[in-house]
Amino acid sequence: MIPTDNTRILRVACADATGIIHRVTGVLAEFGLNVIEQEEFVDGETRRFFLRTGFTGDAVNETIEAAVRKAVDDEESFVSVRDRSPRKIAILVTKEAHCIGDLLVRDFSGELNAEIVCVLGNHETLREFVEKFGLPFVHVPSQGLSREEHDAAVLEALAPFAPEILVFAKYMRIIGQGFIDHYENRIINIHHSFLPAFIGARPYHQAYQRGVKIIGATAHIVTGDLDAGPIIAQDIVSVRHSHGVEDMIQSGRNVEKIVLARGLRLLLDDRVFVHGNRTVIFD
Amino acid sequence: MIPTDNTRILRVACADATGIIHRVTGVLAEFGLNVIEQEEFVDGETRRFFLRTGFTGDAVNETIEAAVRKAVDDEESFVSVRDRSPRKIAILVTKEAHCIGDLLVRDFSGELNAEIVCVLGNHETLREFVEKFGLPFVHVPSQGLSREEHDAAVLEALAPFAPEILVFAKYMRIIGQGFIDHYENRIINIHHSFLPAFIGARPYHQAYQRGVKIIGATAHIVTGDLDAGPIIAQDIVSVRHSHGVEDMIQSGRNVEKIVLARGLRLLLDDRVFVHGNRTVIFD
Amino acid sequence: MIPTDNTRILRVACADATGIIHRVTGVLAEFGLNVIEQEEFVDGETRRFFLRTGFTGDAVNETIEAAVRKAVDDEESFVSVRDRSPRKIAILVTKEAHCIGDLLVRDFSGELNAEIVCVLGNHETLREFVEKFGLPFVHVPSQGLSREEHDAAVLEALAPFAPEILVFAKYMRIIGQGFIDHYENRIINIHHSFLPAFIGARPYHQAYQRGVKIIGATAHIVTGDLDAGPIIAQDIVSVRHSHGVEDMIQSGRNVEKIVLARGLRLLLDDRVFVHGNRTVIFD
Amino acid sequence: MIPTDNTRILRVACADATGIIHRVTGVLAEFGLNVIEQEEFVDGETRRFFLRTGFTGDAVNETIEAAVRKAVDDEESFVSVRDRSPRKIAILVTKEAHCIGDLLVRDFSGELNAEIVCVLGNHETLREFVEKFGLPFVHVPSQGLSREEHDAAVLEALAPFAPEILVFAKYMRIIGQGFIDHYENRIINIHHSFLPAFIGARPYHQAYQRGVKIIGATAHIVTGDLDAGPIIAQDIVSVRHSHGVEDMIQSGRNVEKIVLARGLRLLLDDRVFVHGNRTVIFD
Repeated sequence: MIPTDNTRILRVACADATGIIHRVTGVLAEFGLNVIEQEEFVDGETRRFFLRTGFTGDAVNETIEAAVRKAVDDEESFVSVRDRSPRKIAILVTKEAHCIGDLLVRDFSGELNAEIVCVLGNHETLREFVEKFGLPFVHVPSQGLSREEHDAAVLEALAPFAPEILVFAKYMRIIGQGFIDHYENRIINIHHSFLPAFIGARPYHQAYQRGVKIIGATAHIVTGDLDAGPIIAQDIVSVRHSHGVEDMIQSGRNVEKIVLARGLRLLLDDRVFVHGNRTVIFD
Repeated sequence: MIPTDNTRILRVACADATGIIHRVTGVLAEFGLNVIEQEEFVDGETRRFFLRTGFTGDAVNETIEAAVRKAVDDEESFVSVRDRSPRKIAILVTKEAHCIGDLLVRDFSGELNAEIVCVLGNHETLREFVEKFGLPFVHVPSQGLSREEHDAAVLEALAPFAPEILVFAKYMRIIGQGFIDHYENRIINIHHSFLPAFIGARPYHQAYQRGVKIIGATAHIVTGDLDAGPIIAQDIVSVRHSHGVEDMIQSGRNVEKIVLARGLRLLLDDRVFVHGNRTVIFD
Repeated sequence: MIPTDNTRILRVACADATGIIHRVTGVLAEFGLNVIEQEEFVDGETRRFFLRTGFTGDAVNETIEAAVRKAVDDEESFVSVRDRSPRKIAILVTKEAHCIGDLLVRDFSGELNAEIVCVLGNHETLREFVEKFGLPFVHVPSQGLSREEHDAAVLEALAPFAPEILVFAKYMRIIGQGFIDHYENRIINIHHSFLPAFIGARPYHQAYQRGVKIIGATAHIVTGDLDAGPIIAQDIVSVRHSHGVEDMIQSGRNVEKIVLARGLRLLLDDRVFVHGNRTVIFD
Repeated sequence: MIPTDNTRILRVACADATGIIHRVTGVLAEFGLNVIEQEEFVDGETRRFFLRTGFTGDAVNETIEAAVRKAVDDEESFVSVRDRSPRKIAILVTKEAHCIGDLLVRDFSGELNAEIVCVLGNHETLREFVEKFGLPFVHVPSQGLSREEHDAAVLEALAPFAPEILVFAKYMRIIGQGFIDHYENRIINIHHSFLPAFIGARPYHQAYQRGVKIIGATAHIVTGDLDAGPIIAQDIVSVRHSHGVEDMIQSGRNVEKIVLARGLRLLLDDRVFVHGNRTVIFD
């Protein structure tokens, strides 16, 4: 899974057809490119073909993309070639520090294959914490604003930083379709439950009342359907009768931050394909 | 956790009060009983006290129970002393063999601390399989019967075997309150999902459509509320985009049978207290 | 992961080279074969290429194999085309029933994509159990025999059944290199610990003494190096201070049988490549 | 598990005897103390009795301890009463930021029930990072010093901060018995493997070479026996053939920091009893 410096990633999603893998890899061969890693998958139900190829070589991204698009010959195809340079990400927060803190520590350690361009909060709570790490903190309060107005204010505040991906690190706001359209399939959220269980507010209280023996967290792509976007990663932790709501929240935080970081890593590494309401993950 | 042959188990559930543990253990001391293992728990919300004590010694069960009841002085108390002799259980099935098969193999291996008095099916499918193991198989078909009539027929068929506990090992029938009342807190069911996700039918199909990355199973006490009874045990297994519905069903079966066996073991070993819609489990 | 009836599986392992995937898939395209599922992997260290392709179409196995061998042009290549018909397996046991029992129940349920040709034991203990399922049980006692003699007797007893794969389902014998050579990379064993922890005898006793909080099991290919063969699958279960050695053994059995079944399924489905002391698993 | 502000914790470890729980709880009753939570355990092999009781009330710690000591009447008993005020901890590091970073973020969030009095490193690497959080960083280089000399220098540097507990958060030094004796049973270390697998250096390289499918981490009490101290907590994460050593290190870090934090929390909350080479954990 480790990228070498000059590896690039080709991703293709299109309708399946006989010989498609041969035609796509033919493009790579034609340009003298060297395949380092490759995974493909054909969905049995939808007959959609997914390919992720890591390669080295000299041809220009756009040239390769054009040749692959021609080879797959599907108007609805997705074809992308990217190098491994860090992407610009913005992190959105509210008041809780565990997820943003985890990402900032990873950034400090050089573990995060991304450039954090800013952190935006709808509260001031985390300003001091974020600024410790030398990052700009942008406060966009929501008081007195409709959801649409706040969404617009957030989009406007993010614009100068030109983030490619947004990370909702316990950003406790519901956003509208207009916002989502600006960053389609480029917003990752951490939900504090094992979706689809405990949709909505206060999932740990719900879990406690239900008497579950396992709690979890879910990293997913944000869509217009609340808490119902395509799932990237999930994990769980066991709880006991002796664990109260606060214990569950505490255990849950451990899962939340790890699952968000894992999901983000997969996204940054071009390993996630959105496929309707599901995902294809090459890890 | 290993019972010695002559260990008995005292269980107490009652309202908490200062000195209650001292008074209860005072009864044991008074009778010269030797505490081998003991766990207790006081629920922070409901202030209910739970105790499970394994002990050796000579006093008679009923004498100990009466003395403990007097010591806790709560009209709503639950007090029980039992020896470790195997309990009589009946297993109810429909067509799937994995859970009943797992229990029969455990029984053969001497792992199951219970006496299986009969297996009852609403189909004939598993008769031959069950009879291999020398156990009586009772068929109670549901065709042409209302739910109440079928419930009554099942109860009548079970009666001569006098089971203490019923195990629903993929018994795909919804039973009525009348049935449940006959075996209050003594029916364990395996639900083929990580409750409360995917309540109802075809949970693996639901899970596949939702694109989850983890599936699970839940062993719970059957109450009048479908799939909402107190949870005893849960576990999960990871799935990938390459896993179709059939793969999920297959992986799910592995979790189902282990979770059911684990939940049943806890129940047979007097380690489960029902506490409203939750459970206290001393494992 | 679900095979359709007429799918065949092509497997290739060889030295990596530029364009290799294009050349191999070119063979499939040339014969007009339709790729249903495909995974590939190039090991970063050894530069070895692994491919597993599920396809449909008409060409003959041997013709495809020959064409692929020519395309990869590596004298050390492994190339195999197989249909999905059930393979013949023999299961070897000693006295414990949980693993063989689990496999027999799966076989009964039609879950096992294999034909169990016989069960062989070095003790008589499980004869009655196995014969319930209508399978031949072969007893090859080891008393008075050297390891070599017993190995030879087992091989001789197995020969008429012509098994393709041997499953050591708690077969508590150490076998010699001569035995292994007969079934190279075709023997799967379940080891009752999380290898490489607790190699050798009585791992649960070792685990208890060491005070671990997790125990596990490992399914691996048997090689001449005791308990050191390539690992196919591993899983774990948590334990507590209240769990004695017997509890660990009991919990461990649950993991053992599931891990063995999972490893066997991967093997039967041609998803396992042995790669030195490691494995490449396409699941 | 949630402490209320004025709860105190009584811990007792001593030889088991008939009526011991009654005598100990008699002391609590005598002083009019109210038991909020209580767990006890008697080890079947060693016949050692362990008790952890959370209580409220007015009696003085020392008075209670003396009365309990008298009640258990065992010269080798351990008896301790403590309030829930945060303990002073020192964190020792080398160069890696993930564990210390995780603890500092928890401290910032108010999740850590402890007062971090200083961070000590044998390298300067993490000074800037630690000082961001307003904590003193002490550098004790080891160059040119024998192990004994460096140990002594570290002890001397820690002394003014009077830490009660030391946390080795990826402190990559082996310490001598002299050091350990100063903080007997009060040093927690995170080992980057699932002990007892992969003892010693470079466990992820060992794990990669061995081809394991699961890696893990272990939080344990430091004793004179390298990597063999009593285990408090362990957890694991799955890996695949596509994961190189660097991927394993990355995944391993996620487990390491969570396991260390979990182990530390149990220790700070007086939930850990050392019992020979094992632990009794009341969680």
